[in-house]
Amino acid sequence: MAQQNGTTQCGVPTNQPEFPRASYQELPDPHGIKQSDWKGITDWQATWGDIDTRYEKHVPPHNKQGISMTLEGWKGETLHAQAVTWSGKTITNLTFKFSEFNGRNHQTLPASAFSGGFVRYVMTDQLNTDGKGGCGDRIDHSLFDSLLVADCIDHTIASMSMEAYSVRPIWISCRIPKETVPGTYSGKVIIEADGKSVALSLKIIVHKRTLPDPSQWAFHLDLWQNPFAVARYYKVPLWSQEHFEAMRPILKMLAGAGQKSITVSLMHKPWGGQTEDYFESMVTWIKKVDGTWRFDFGVFDKWVEFAMSQGIDQQINCYSMVPWKLSFQYFDQATNQMKSIQTAPGEDAYNEMWTAMLTSFSKHLKAKGWFDKCIIAMDERPREVMQQTLKLIRQVEPNFKVSLAGSYHKELEPELYDYCITIGETFPEEVKESRQKQGKVSTVYTCCAEAFPNTFTFSDPAEAAWIGYHIANRHLDGYLRWAYNSWVKEPLLDSRFRAWAAGDTYLVYPDARSSIRFDRLVEGIQAYEKVYLLRKEFKSLNNQRGLEKIEKILSPFKLKNLPQVPASKTVQTAQKALNSF
Amino acid sequence: MAQQNGTTQCGVPTNQPEFPRASYQELPDPHGIKQSDWKGITDWQATWGDIDTRYEKHVPPHNKQGISMTLEGWKGETLHAQAVTWSGKTITNLTFKFSEFNGRNHQTLPASAFSGGFVRYVMTDQLNTDGKGGCGDRIDHSLFDSLLVADCIDHTIASMSMEAYSVRPIWISCRIPKETVPGTYSGKVIIEADGKSVALSLKIIVHKRTLPDPSQWAFHLDLWQNPFAVARYYKVPLWSQEHFEAMRPILKMLAGAGQKSITVSLMHKPWGGQTEDYFESMVTWIKKVDGTWRFDFGVFDKWVEFAMSQGIDQQINCYSMVPWKLSFQYFDQATNQMKSIQTAPGEDAYNEMWTAMLTSFSKHLKAKGWFDKCIIAMDERPREVMQQTLKLIRQVEPNFKVSLAGSYHKELEPELYDYCITIGETFPEEVKESRQKQGKVSTVYTCCAEAFPNTFTFSDPAEAAWIGYHIANRHLDGYLRWAYNSWVKEPLLDSRFRAWAAGDTYLVYPDARSSIRFDRLVEGIQAYEKVYLLRKEFKSLNNQRGLEKIEKILSPFKLKNLPQVPASKTVQTAQKALNSF
Repeated sequence: MAQQNGTTQCGVPTNQPEFPRASYQELPDPHGIKQSDWKGITDWQATWGDIDTRYEKHVPPHNKQGISMTLEGWKGETLHAQAVTWSGKTITNLTFKFSEFNGRNHQTLPASAFSGGFVRYVMTDQLNTDGKGGCGDRIDHSLFDSLLVADCIDHTIASMSMEAYSVRPIWISCRIPKETVPGTYSGKVIIEADGKSVALSLKIIVHKRTLPDPSQWAFHLDLWQNPFAVARYYKVPLWSQEHFEAMRPILKMLAGAGQKSITVSLMHKPWGGQTEDYFESMVTWIKKVDGTWRFDFGVFDKWVEFAMSQGIDQQINCYSMVPWKLSFQYFDQATNQMKSIQTAPGEDAYNEMWTAMLTSFSKHLKAKGWFDKCIIAMDERPREVMQQTLKLIRQVEPNFKVSLAGSYHKELEPELYDYCITIGETFPEEVKESRQKQGKVSTVYTCCAEAFPNTFTFSDPAEAAWIGYHIANRHLDGYLRWAYNSWVKEPLLDSRFRAWAAGDTYLVYPDARSSIRFDRLVEGIQAYEKVYLLRKEFKSLNNQRGLEKIEKILSPFKLKNLPQVPASKTVQTAQKALNSF
Repeated sequence: MAQQNGTTQCGVPTNQPEFPRASYQELPDPHGIKQSDWKGITDWQATWGDIDTRYEKHVPPHNKQGISMTLEGWKGETLHAQAVTWSGKTITNLTFKFSEFNGRNHQTLPASAFSGGFVRYVMTDQLNTDGKGGCGDRIDHSLFDSLLVADCIDHTIASMSMEAYSVRPIWISCRIPKETVPGTYSGKVIIEADGKSVALSLKIIVHKRTLPDPSQWAFHLDLWQNPFAVARYYKVPLWSQEHFEAMRPILKMLAGAGQKSITVSLMHKPWGGQTEDYFESMVTWIKKVDGTWRFDFGVFDKWVEFAMSQGIDQQINCYSMVPWKLSFQYFDQATNQMKSIQTAPGEDAYNEMWTAMLTSFSKHLKAKGWFDKCIIAMDERPREVMQQTLKLIRQVEPNFKVSLAGSYHKELEPELYDYCITIGETFPEEVKESRQKQGKVSTVYTCCAEAFPNTFTFSDPAEAAWIGYHIANRHLDGYLRWAYNSWVKEPLLDSRFRAWAAGDTYLVYPDARSSIRFDRLVEGIQAYEKVYLLRKEFKSLNNQRGLEKIEKILSPFKLKNLPQVPASKTVQTAQKALNSF
């Protein structure tokens, strides 16, 4: 993989920290090899595939696209293609590299525009057997189908071996530099296997329009980061230099997707410790022996400053005054122990501790200059509980911004700066418009509940891209998913967890390995961004026909169309149409 | 019990806080009742007993002393007598009261001079079966004899019932007011049982010499206090107002015995959690996320200020830089958890944390004006370890006072302000003298190791008194015992523990109930004090004969004489002789 060292990969920094990069063995395929599938295939072969297919590991590839591939996009946009190789014999050294990419008048695309990685297989499961989403416990994996799926994009190794009768896709990315002269650039992806090589043609058509840097994107992306999973996975002390080094490429990759919010845990286990690595409090709560509260923001500061330094710097979303278990842990000086209080909004104990906390916190935020970025973030709780919480917040500091990820409640809406509802719900049209005028953020989320669209490791890859178009169609601001990297025990090997459909808890892999899901989610965000810019342009030019055309392009992105109309088809059509402007 | 309310009892404050004072049931006597012992005894009877006998609960009393008793002592001294009652029938209401005590010329002893309590039975065991002390685990109590013994002195109830064929001793104390005119005072202790009453004569002979208040005593008493046992027993929050109220009478009683040292735990489990209630750190250790240490002395201050307010104000003995398990717990801000470091003196991690701690501590002590009272207290560890520790202390603050409770090490001796060796060891004569000249404290201790003398619940009561005489004989400064109130689960019912001979872990009972052991230990301390004053007087008068006479009186108090020469006999003789000056 010629582009590996020191070159830029989409969303991945060039200088990776030195973590162990030992190549790992994928788990055995539960479905094994059917010899009859491989009848007559004795050699190694390679061709273009499509990016909508998760090629099976031990079945010769379908959906082959031949040896020529054309991608098109705006300057600044990142495009993807997928090559696929398969072999009837053992291969000891599979590699790939890029040729020069030449346009007219000796113009070229730089080598740094291209990157790629072997697509790796990870264990997954399936939707609930009734087909209705992926919620619920999954302690016993044998109750679900287990299968190996292609998902992780591994940029960390320069070559791989292949066993006989196996498939290895290669994911190709091209980030078109913003300064590129529009036109068509031609080159090759050369794939080599034990001396035999296949040169796959690749044309990049660069349009005249420009997508700005992700930091400038309008799309409000909020994928929750889990620093605790990183510390555990890399066996590094929490908040140590090594921990931050381990998080650097992961956060950089997220910033590269236009992430807006830093995920902060204000207290111990805001979500009841539902992930493999629970969220510990980033604020130190101390109950002194004299009965007063003392707060220390040393961890919070370190985390926020680090995330900002990596380019995630618009919001600080702080969870949670209404955690799932209404239990609040603190260090108790009198007993020299960690203790917990069970108390609910509206109760004296709750009001006393949170008044002390919010008073101290708002003072600290103002001193740091972060007050306007900080959001007191709530998860869904009964409306009365949330109203009690809001009342307390307003008593302490009327100007605190507040967010909620949950159902739509018209009583709460006016209080919420950042309101994220389930993808199946809608904001009343006049509320949506009013919120936009006030500069408030209105988004939707998916979680285990949605069968389609989703980003499980077995989900149709195009569904991830579909989401951005859908949100553009609805004129909303963005998307939230609760787990960017709440890794399971062995995220590279097995994406299944003790609950929910596999892949629910993470979109990206260790060492900032991206995934088909994540790259395609960003593809949809780019589409949203293109729509956003086109609408803006057409509005300013009063180009009603252009605006209508956009609405028409987006109109198939309705939830009711899934899965009957394949996401891949809808996305392909819309992508082409958007590039026609 | 007429003297109960609002009157003074030896070492016990008059105004007890209002804790539940429900009378409790003693455990059944494992040895039961032998009917033949009670042949011919059908009625209830009472007489004087002696204070050297633990009267058995279900055997008619031996060592009866008749209906007249004479006690003698100095002004300011507290004297004890024991009455014993027994009954061949059920008694529903046993009470006792004091008559007036009259001397010549219409002089009287005030009612407040007298107090008393029912002697209560508690479960005990015995020495190790080889007779060599009481050390080692005792998880299985059935490997030892179990017996009920008379020990606790219960001042909290005004009357008791008696079952048929049972014994109930009554402990009588007289604290001679310092302003008493010397002479003989006569009165009665009137014991009543269901209408029948026995009047026991009591003569108090008051000598002309005066014992000062316990706060002025020279004897260096160091019984380790356990505030954690009190919090657990009374189910009150640690360091709360209720906790301090519960500790008040217990500390007051200890101050009344001339206690000099406040027991402080500088860190978590200085003795590895060997007691029913382990010692938690009174200093808050916080490792901040930036790697620096922060110490908070809020608990330490509360405890020390409280103990001082109760009259224990000479030393603050702080345990321990060399705890039994070389493990140091702290609150770790990064992980929001309690963590432990395993490290030993001489190691970098140890030096780093203790340098930070001692620097912060000495600054705090100086600000409080406590630096000169504070002792960095060590328990026995290998000599090299202790030398490493001393080196570190001296580096941080050369003037820290240091103590050791352990074996005699000539290399360490010059460094130790307060040096307590095992009772079986000796300081070289010239070292002892040199230490006295420098104002250093040289004491001895007993623990589970000694079969005699000791203060187990089954120990001969006179052994407790013997200890003070023994220390006077050796010209030492005082005595240490590691457990004043490290209560077992049910200290009133069963003095046995999971380790060591029963009673090893506490000398006094809940609600500041004294014990035969504790009262008699104080008796020995009073004897020491009398010797101290007589020696001083005789030295100043150059009364060589008097000095020699004292040495002769004390000479039988040698360890080798126990238990062949009964402690009771040696003590009785010496007590009489001391009163003859």
